[in-house]
Amino acid sequence: MTERPNTPLLDTVPTPHELRRLRPEQLRQLADELRQETISAVSVTGGHLGAGLGVVELTVALHYVFNTPDDRLIWDVGHQAYPHKILTGRRERIRTLRQGGGLSGFTRRSESEYDPFGAAHSSTSISAALGFAVANKLAGTPGRAIAVIGDGAMSAGMAYEAMNNAQAAGNRLIVILNDNDMSIAPPVGGLSAYLARLVSSGPFLGLRGFARRVARRLPDPLHRAARKADEYSRGMVTGGTLFEELGFYYVGPVDGHDLDALIPILENVRDAAEGPMLIHVVTKKGKGYGPAEAAADKYHGVQKFDVVSGEQAKAPAGPPSYTGVFAKALIAEGTRDDRVVAITAAMPSGTGLDKFQVQFPDRTFDVGIAEQHAVTFAAGLAAQGYRPFVAIYSTFLQRAYDQVVHDVSIQNLPVRFAMDRAGLVGADGATHAGSFDLAYLCTLPNMVVMAAADEAELVHMVHTMALYDAGPSAVRYPRGNGTGVPLPETPQRLEIGKGRIVREGKKVVLLSLGTRLEEALKAAEILDARGLSTSVADLRFAKPLDTELIRRLLTSHEVAVTVEEAAVGGLGAHVLTMASDQGLTDAGLKLRTMRLPDTYQDQNKPEKQYEEAGLDAAGIVDTVLKALRHNSTGVIEEARA
Amino acid sequence: MTERPNTPLLDTVPTPHELRRLRPEQLRQLADELRQETISAVSVTGGHLGAGLGVVELTVALHYVFNTPDDRLIWDVGHQAYPHKILTGRRERIRTLRQGGGLSGFTRRSESEYDPFGAAHSSTSISAALGFAVANKLAGTPGRAIAVIGDGAMSAGMAYEAMNNAQAAGNRLIVILNDNDMSIAPPVGGLSAYLARLVSSGPFLGLRGFARRVARRLPDPLHRAARKADEYSRGMVTGGTLFEELGFYYVGPVDGHDLDALIPILENVRDAAEGPMLIHVVTKKGKGYGPAEAAADKYHGVQKFDVVSGEQAKAPAGPPSYTGVFAKALIAEGTRDDRVVAITAAMPSGTGLDKFQVQFPDRTFDVGIAEQHAVTFAAGLAAQGYRPFVAIYSTFLQRAYDQVVHDVSIQNLPVRFAMDRAGLVGADGATHAGSFDLAYLCTLPNMVVMAAADEAELVHMVHTMALYDAGPSAVRYPRGNGTGVPLPETPQRLEIGKGRIVREGKKVVLLSLGTRLEEALKAAEILDARGLSTSVADLRFAKPLDTELIRRLLTSHEVAVTVEEAAVGGLGAHVLTMASDQGLTDAGLKLRTMRLPDTYQDQNKPEKQYEEAGLDAAGIVDTVLKALRHNSTGVIEEARA
Repeated sequence: MTERPNTPLLDTVPTPHELRRLRPEQLRQLADELRQETISAVSVTGGHLGAGLGVVELTVALHYVFNTPDDRLIWDVGHQAYPHKILTGRRERIRTLRQGGGLSGFTRRSESEYDPFGAAHSSTSISAALGFAVANKLAGTPGRAIAVIGDGAMSAGMAYEAMNNAQAAGNRLIVILNDNDMSIAPPVGGLSAYLARLVSSGPFLGLRGFARRVARRLPDPLHRAARKADEYSRGMVTGGTLFEELGFYYVGPVDGHDLDALIPILENVRDAAEGPMLIHVVTKKGKGYGPAEAAADKYHGVQKFDVVSGEQAKAPAGPPSYTGVFAKALIAEGTRDDRVVAITAAMPSGTGLDKFQVQFPDRTFDVGIAEQHAVTFAAGLAAQGYRPFVAIYSTFLQRAYDQVVHDVSIQNLPVRFAMDRAGLVGADGATHAGSFDLAYLCTLPNMVVMAAADEAELVHMVHTMALYDAGPSAVRYPRGNGTGVPLPETPQRLEIGKGRIVREGKKVVLLSLGTRLEEALKAAEILDARGLSTSVADLRFAKPLDTELIRRLLTSHEVAVTVEEAAVGGLGAHVLTMASDQGLTDAGLKLRTMRLPDTYQDQNKPEKQYEEAGLDAAGIVDTVLKALRHNSTGVIEEARA
Repeated sequence: MTERPNTPLLDTVPTPHELRRLRPEQLRQLADELRQETISAVSVTGGHLGAGLGVVELTVALHYVFNTPDDRLIWDVGHQAYPHKILTGRRERIRTLRQGGGLSGFTRRSESEYDPFGAAHSSTSISAALGFAVANKLAGTPGRAIAVIGDGAMSAGMAYEAMNNAQAAGNRLIVILNDNDMSIAPPVGGLSAYLARLVSSGPFLGLRGFARRVARRLPDPLHRAARKADEYSRGMVTGGTLFEELGFYYVGPVDGHDLDALIPILENVRDAAEGPMLIHVVTKKGKGYGPAEAAADKYHGVQKFDVVSGEQAKAPAGPPSYTGVFAKALIAEGTRDDRVVAITAAMPSGTGLDKFQVQFPDRTFDVGIAEQHAVTFAAGLAAQGYRPFVAIYSTFLQRAYDQVVHDVSIQNLPVRFAMDRAGLVGADGATHAGSFDLAYLCTLPNMVVMAAADEAELVHMVHTMALYDAGPSAVRYPRGNGTGVPLPETPQRLEIGKGRIVREGKKVVLLSLGTRLEEALKAAEILDARGLSTSVADLRFAKPLDTELIRRLLTSHEVAVTVEEAAVGGLGAHVLTMASDQGLTDAGLKLRTMRLPDTYQDQNKPEKQYEEAGLDAAGIVDTVLKALRHNSTGVIEEARA
């Protein structure tokens, strides 16, 4: 247990109400104590650290200047909000961050009135803030909305869509652009280069410079129009940053760690009468904690660590991660075939593409937080004869659903989707779970959808996809480590739409898709021991289904259960549809589908989450036994006993 | 039949190869003939006219200057590509546009090598072009990619994401911004205002101005860096349009109808050595056809019409459209409750919100082509106590799927989705079909998903949604006219998750969701006449299902068939899942699910499309009879006879 830091001033500030009673000169100390408390908490829980440390002063200043929670403060992504949580009544629970039953690692409406909008996926904050601001404007009630958004998140289309609409909110909308030149990976693209030019174009804005700039920017409308007209007559459109062109007043750059600059500027912005404002604040990720500042990733996400040394707890040695296995497999394909290219939306290390990039820098494309573009860009590459793999978390592919439908599936282009973090994901909770991909992909014509049962299967599937040019294909695999099976020296090309029998039995059959196979095999052992001879199949493909195999198994066993780590509408629904299409239900079919519950499951250790979902060996056994006891009148015999 | 125009020059130009042999001074005549041919064709077929007329000269110029099809020309949205089709070997079939078996109203890969990428949804062209350009760059083969994108389409996030990544393509990428100050509705937002300022800031660029500007813009890198540094030292970042800030060379504005300006500028751009280029071309929608130029919507989409008068064929009088009924119902809700607000993504007239806007201008928000922002903006409004309706085509809601999941469903916020154009849509074809909404929404926790069986039901459902604050809700309804049922004077609040019995029978039950109810009732008559007493239920809710009603109906009839106008994974899959969960299949259950086929259906009259899908009365009868004949061995008796 790390020793708690000494925080005499912070101890007197449980909520922003007390904060706002402090004198301005006390805020430096408060920020320092808040930083120490944040470091201490995350050293115990692990989690996102660098982002929070970068916004300690900003957090203090925003709550000091604005009337939260009535003024709505919306942290984009939300993983930088740990200091905010400490300052808004959640300090006592801060050492439960990301634990089962504990505080979320993101903002969350149910946690606090100071979290008006939950976040976790990037780039939603300006849209949400605009909603709050416009609602207040319509109702004629006071209250501003402040979105705090990172430079990386600004590369996403939805942030731009929202900026383009900012005028609707008038002066009730304030956007804080938190520019730390780094989201998770170093930023890419034109916007990032542009921001760097803005920051390097002049000294940080102090109070005096700010007053001058606001005077220049907020004259009466007539004067402004006249000046613009003059500019136009000279044939140039100056006067503006990109943000001003979209309708914002741009203020910055401001040193985000300098409270003496930050507070008066925010006060002036708060009191400005006209238009939406964008404050360009420059911060350092990991600020004020040596080991974080020194680390390449600025302690973006960390394990528990020792506060003094910064040394992180090592993950216990174990089988390789699915991400790592995918990376190696893709490198092998890339080595064999130079048409294999890889695309990531700002997650090179999360998806393993950082390793592919080392081998094939010209064939790796990090497009920034831009999933929509990533998919259609890949479709263009495929249309020109390349073999693109879009490596993406299952939950983030939701951002590009229309592109999957309209640009890939309808055109039947061979884009490959490597969907990492499928199923439940543990500490990141419901927002990051990859639960829906089977439902939203299997409904689409032309799609081939696979799930890897273990890391060796993943290698085969990556190989199969690389060689499959007849249309789009996808493979899903979970967060975390593989099962420890030996990896194949030579990958096999799997037959599309064909499953495999893993275990032969007679009475019960488990139809598994994905990594629940391990639990299905355990369940089979237990059932066998009870005299219920159990077959287990790994279907491999959710689409196209292996209808021949499934039909044979359904008609040769007394009870069948499908098992998948996905929401309703996936494998189970499609197996049932096939069975019904073929009339297999007509004469009686004891078929049950096991899937994720129809709720959003909170964060917890993945094995706990699967236990809660009933998707472990015990749950499978239970489902089989209940199905066997179920009689033809539709009443479970045991229940009547 | 309209008389064909006289087109002596066009007759000699079947493909761009012949076009490129013409002398520059012949192009004006070619453009004029191409315009007449376009007008003549659309007068016969109906379809998109204004957009195509606006780009006649651009079409001629692009094919003249660039080496299509090796240079990849990508028309954003694609509905302006009729002149392009006439010039690229499809003139003979141009009078089949949008007809069953005819040419698509959009670009389409399978139609022509001159359509390298299919379009129909907006704003995909830059991403796709970037894919082509990068592929050529990787392969070291020649070939540029040219995206032609409207100013309205530029407001979509994915266009921005692509622009942000344009540097990856180097000088192989050319973006033509076709600025007609109008997509379908007048444009909105900061970008649109910005473009208007650019256009009004100076005279059109001629060849001389272009040469000067390119000289200024393409000096050697050192000079450029020095100039920038100087600008920065003066504390201002000028030198740039928004596009330049994102990494493009900006050239414009250029008069898009002046071939003498257009051709040399495009030639220079083609030969430029450095960086991606953006040419800002100003055009007039409907150009060159009086009735179109005079119309408010510039003949965006038209019925067949008389070329001389411009008078469009009237749609036969009939029941009101679903869109119109929705608009009236929403106005009624808005009148009762001033918390009802409405949001559209650039489709005010398509969704009927133009009518709501007349009544409630302050409570209507057209956010531009920005579906992602629309949904999260609505979530913000809901979080602040408003009752937002997002009125959107089913197919376009795909663009905002992650926002539906992450911002609405996970947070359980009461955003209402009014999903127009659900099911098959006729002439717009597969890209616009609303086939997947049931699958992609019903897999989400917290969602309430309804489908209107007729226009009276739609009124009840809109009312029900307005009053339902417990979470998100959605209603789907088709393109076209209602069934003619009387509209309720007072709408009913429906009980969530409860269906209704429409017809009582004994042997067969049809479980219908949505407007196939009419065909289901016809089928029931036919079956009754054959001695098969048939019940029909309108389930109203795809989620939550009326499990009690469904269970009762399944267990009291010999055969059950679900009927929905949606892809696999929707109602049928969920009814089967429920039946399996409850063990209803164990003792035998003749349940069949009728749904859209697992293919993309081409354009045709909607009734033909449904016939093709088997989703008409005859198809339903057939499914019931086959199910009845199906015996327990899984073989259809008739087949053995």
